[in-house]
Amino acid sequence: LSSMNRVIDVCLTPELICQHELSGKIAVIIDVFRATSCMVAGLANGIKRIRPVLEVEECRAFQSVGYLAGGERDAQMIEGFDLDNSPFSYMSEKTNGRKIAMTTTNGTLAIDRAKVKAQEVLVASFSNLSATANYLRHQEKDVLLICAGWKGRPGLEDILFAGALVKALQETHVNKEDSTHLALAAYDLAKENVLEYLQRASHLKRLKTLGGEDIPFCLIPDQFDVVVHLVDNELCLK
Amino acid sequence: LSSMNRVIDVCLTPELICQHELSGKIAVIIDVFRATSCMVAGLANGIKRIRPVLEVEECRAFQSVGYLAGGERDAQMIEGFDLDNSPFSYMSEKTNGRKIAMTTTNGTLAIDRAKVKAQEVLVASFSNLSATANYLRHQEKDVLLICAGWKGRPGLEDILFAGALVKALQETHVNKEDSTHLALAAYDLAKENVLEYLQRASHLKRLKTLGGEDIPFCLIPDQFDVVVHLVDNELCLK
Repeated sequence: LSSMNRVIDVCLTPELICQHELSGKIAVIIDVFRATSCMVAGLANGIKRIRPVLEVEECRAFQSVGYLAGGERDAQMIEGFDLDNSPFSYMSEKTNGRKIAMTTTNGTLAIDRAKVKAQEVLVASFSNLSATANYLRHQEKDVLLICAGWKGRPGLEDILFAGALVKALQETHVNKEDSTHLALAAYDLAKENVLEYLQRASHLKRLKTLGGEDIPFCLIPDQFDVVVHLVDNELCLK
Repeated sequence: LSSMNRVIDVCLTPELICQHELSGKIAVIIDVFRATSCMVAGLANGIKRIRPVLEVEECRAFQSVGYLAGGERDAQMIEGFDLDNSPFSYMSEKTNGRKIAMTTTNGTLAIDRAKVKAQEVLVASFSNLSATANYLRHQEKDVLLICAGWKGRPGLEDILFAGALVKALQETHVNKEDSTHLALAAYDLAKENVLEYLQRASHLKRLKTLGGEDIPFCLIPDQFDVVVHLVDNELCLK
């Protein structure tokens, strides 16, 4: 595929994956708050591999064979787990050189649905926006950005990041679909201050309950010059 | 429900209706290009009732008992039908005082899914924006706007109209969900010139194939001061 014959498209929630052709494409999974932000931060800071899993019990099984267990359920730390879902927890001495089994409500589901057919599965967040865009720019593949959302519903933070990636790739990838345009439009409105935009965006109850330093951290672009992809069901650096 | 305790929400495609609670709510079906634009224009101009149906054969059955048959498949007129899917066809002498059985690809499906649980089902388009907003403003009910889209995928024109309705109701209805904010954001960008915005919006192949006067007509706000609702499976004026 030559320049501008490549297509970039956005899937607004994992519920709509069935509407998209994944064969031969690179799928990029986006779960800004907070799974893919944790994954990128962790792998950029010494974690060896991260295995995304669906169930808490599956995490515990991997814990018993030497993995650290991480993740959340309804934004709460899980009993007996080593790590919560703050990106800072994935950048400590404790995690350096380790393998992590991670369960999340939305991101894992999106990864599981994408890996069946996609040629390659990446995970990305604002923290590795430029690195991911740069990688995609040099692959002769169509791209599908899959927003993990929140309990199957569209999540604005994921859609804004999808819009940022579409914008970063507009010299090389055409967007033909309305959902892709919608993501780009929202990002164009938000880009001056994404955090402020999300806070202003109506009554985002989810955000109010997600306090502290994590939310601003998850929105800082280009902190890490890494590309993260899935190999044999585990995420690692490219 | 007092003012501002009412909620307005947007369902971006009929595929996502299952994520929304419909009980006790007013559902507004939006299929700007062109089903709900035809329905509003027709009922405002003398059509007695419009029965939305899923199948072409169902339309033909109603044709045999005195209805006119209208609709499209893949934007084409259907063999043996009386009306295509141009709103102008629904405002003629031929249709005055008549009942119409209408099949469309997307709008009918959305109506069928909504009517099962919603307290009331309206259909709306730009042409009755203010009338619909005014009606909703005076009902003590939550509102769900259902965008019909295109083959299950989100359609920008429907989402823009949903955003226009959310904006018109922002004094009385709160929007708590990200999808609703997204619709509002897109409309805020587009509102100065919706047609131009849709034309600029990336490579909207669908629009290019939908020529003529219909598209601009479907985007003109407040042509008709009517509210359209579903009674016993047929649409009529409120």
